[in-house]
Amino acid sequence: SRDEELILPINSSLSVTLHQHQLKTTTTAAISKDFTKDRIWLNGREEDVGQPRIQACLREIRRLARKRKSDGDEDALPLCLSYKVHVASVNNFPTAAGLASSAAGFACLACALARVYGVEGDLSEVARRGSGSACRSLYGGFVEWQMGQRADGKDSIAQQVAPESHWPELRVLILVVSAEKKLMGSTAGMQTSVETSALLRFRAKALVPARMAEMARCIRERDFQAFGQLTMKDSNQFHATCLDTFPPISYLSDTSQRVIRLVHRFNAHHGCTKVAYSFDAGPNAVIFALDDTVPEFVAAVQHSFPPEPNGDKFLQGLPVEPALLSDELKAALGTDPTPGGIRYIIATQVGPGPQVLDDPGAHLLGPDGLPKLAS
Amino acid sequence: SRDEELILPINSSLSVTLHQHQLKTTTTAAISKDFTKDRIWLNGREEDVGQPRIQACLREIRRLARKRKSDGDEDALPLCLSYKVHVASVNNFPTAAGLASSAAGFACLACALARVYGVEGDLSEVARRGSGSACRSLYGGFVEWQMGQRADGKDSIAQQVAPESHWPELRVLILVVSAEKKLMGSTAGMQTSVETSALLRFRAKALVPARMAEMARCIRERDFQAFGQLTMKDSNQFHATCLDTFPPISYLSDTSQRVIRLVHRFNAHHGCTKVAYSFDAGPNAVIFALDDTVPEFVAAVQHSFPPEPNGDKFLQGLPVEPALLSDELKAALGTDPTPGGIRYIIATQVGPGPQVLDDPGAHLLGPDGLPKLAS
Repeated sequence: SRDEELILPINSSLSVTLHQHQLKTTTTAAISKDFTKDRIWLNGREEDVGQPRIQACLREIRRLARKRKSDGDEDALPLCLSYKVHVASVNNFPTAAGLASSAAGFACLACALARVYGVEGDLSEVARRGSGSACRSLYGGFVEWQMGQRADGKDSIAQQVAPESHWPELRVLILVVSAEKKLMGSTAGMQTSVETSALLRFRAKALVPARMAEMARCIRERDFQAFGQLTMKDSNQFHATCLDTFPPISYLSDTSQRVIRLVHRFNAHHGCTKVAYSFDAGPNAVIFALDDTVPEFVAAVQHSFPPEPNGDKFLQGLPVEPALLSDELKAALGTDPTPGGIRYIIATQVGPGPQVLDDPGAHLLGPDGLPKLAS
Repeated sequence: SRDEELILPINSSLSVTLHQHQLKTTTTAAISKDFTKDRIWLNGREEDVGQPRIQACLREIRRLARKRKSDGDEDALPLCLSYKVHVASVNNFPTAAGLASSAAGFACLACALARVYGVEGDLSEVARRGSGSACRSLYGGFVEWQMGQRADGKDSIAQQVAPESHWPELRVLILVVSAEKKLMGSTAGMQTSVETSALLRFRAKALVPARMAEMARCIRERDFQAFGQLTMKDSNQFHATCLDTFPPISYLSDTSQRVIRLVHRFNAHHGCTKVAYSFDAGPNAVIFALDDTVPEFVAAVQHSFPPEPNGDKFLQGLPVEPALLSDELKAALGTDPTPGGIRYIIATQVGPGPQVLDDPGAHLLGPDGLPKLAS
């Protein structure tokens, strides 16, 4: 980032918000005069609320609440800003495994805090303080994080490029390679990259702006060929800059490389870009394809990575029709299967932004302000 | 390369010639009016002499021989340029496994052909036609391949920066990860990179020139700290541009990544750069260190990659004193050993350029012009 304190990026970026039916963070926040201190529970376990990024979010939301009150907003809740807050949050997917758990988590935290403190309007700044990419997860569909120009970061905000309904045929498959914790969190890695990688600085300045414009066009026109090509190229270039970091960062494992090869062979067999991969800060592959390609590609993954007999359910999420592979495709994929290389696949699609759960039964904190799970 | 036919590079480069006591190619060439066609045997097996790169070398050496004759050189051998040539070549190390076998092979081929055809002077052009980097292997010690500016490539030549005697304490360890053949030869890969990687073009133009000058200074002043840092950064950046190629090229395996981590942890423990890695077009690590660091680092490698009980002799080449690791260093290296990850280590040092073997017993072709091995 160009500013580590404010978490301002050195280039704009674009992400797809995944559907909460398959991947979601649920967060409950409550304030009370009876709470003696701020507390937070993640996946049922109490964590140190003093973590700088959590503190930054709390500080920012309280600042916005105070500002709103002093602006004399009549609708402002009669809240006491000195009240302590309790937060409970759970993911229904592995944490810190390169599945953007911190983006989902901090976006959800920002929304939950905004609700209890009666803050309205854009929450990019609150979410961004937690984890930069979290600001994109405040919206559904296809979302751009505009880097902005101002030193105070007020124009570094998320904006929807297209809603989740825009490209209904688009599917997303997450190939989970490993649920192990990463050696290095993506935020620490990114900071070293900015300081040490000349290729990263060149990419940010000279290459990303044109790529952002081209990506927005691909999405607007639903041009899967170009969308897929650019997605793969940009993922590769991001990981190239990680490798150019010193000491180098490598998120791609041998299995990630095998998935990359599989995708290129699958596309070469079909003579066009039917599938595209993208890798975040971890070895898991995020695969994009149109719905009519999914059954054959899933069969190709199962062929190349025969599932472990006693492993997890291999195909999770959206249902996928079984498909048979032609002998030509099998030959094109090569004869070096890697049993157990992929633990499971989550099939999902583009989804909406944060949703409010009105049913008190869905809340994670009980009337006593403590997690229901822990009681 | 900027010219695929002439094999002209898009940036200058520098390499260390390894000692032939540990890693060498031996080549015998013979011409005779009795030979009916050009033939070549590599590691005892006849190969297709029609391979474009072998043909390019033969064409170039015959052109130089013809030129010399027509220049009226009195010393020119009374050779018949229409004579066919037989060539036999063996490596004492795995071929096509990222150990620069084609560089050694084509440098040796150029020298052997020059001798039978009576060609003298710089052979950069002959070797380069076979494999670009082969021109550097025509000299011992530390060798620069100057990219040159001319379209005809006449100034794209190798030049010694310092002789093999310049830095006697420098040691080179080759950590052999796998002797499998590569999926993609490095020449094909490089061409795709130039065409598709914007990061490679930026690196070549904006970053390499200053790095070349700095590397020459490090060698001149025997500044191991700076030499090691730059070696690692440049290796990482090269592999970054491979990943930015489309489709991407990845030579580094999970084991390569573990070696990288080991080196950084070893250096962090010592608080300075005691060891440096470099990776060529394959997963094997080339490690640089001064002689007094070698025993401890080899022990660290054995600790992190416990050798297979029935595998190859683990330590080959120059003798290395056994060393014990301190508990502090063991703790710094972490507790995730990878048994069998490294097959063996070749300990070597900087060596001289091509040597002529006068003993006929060392020649690979018998009096009948056929390989002795095959007879």
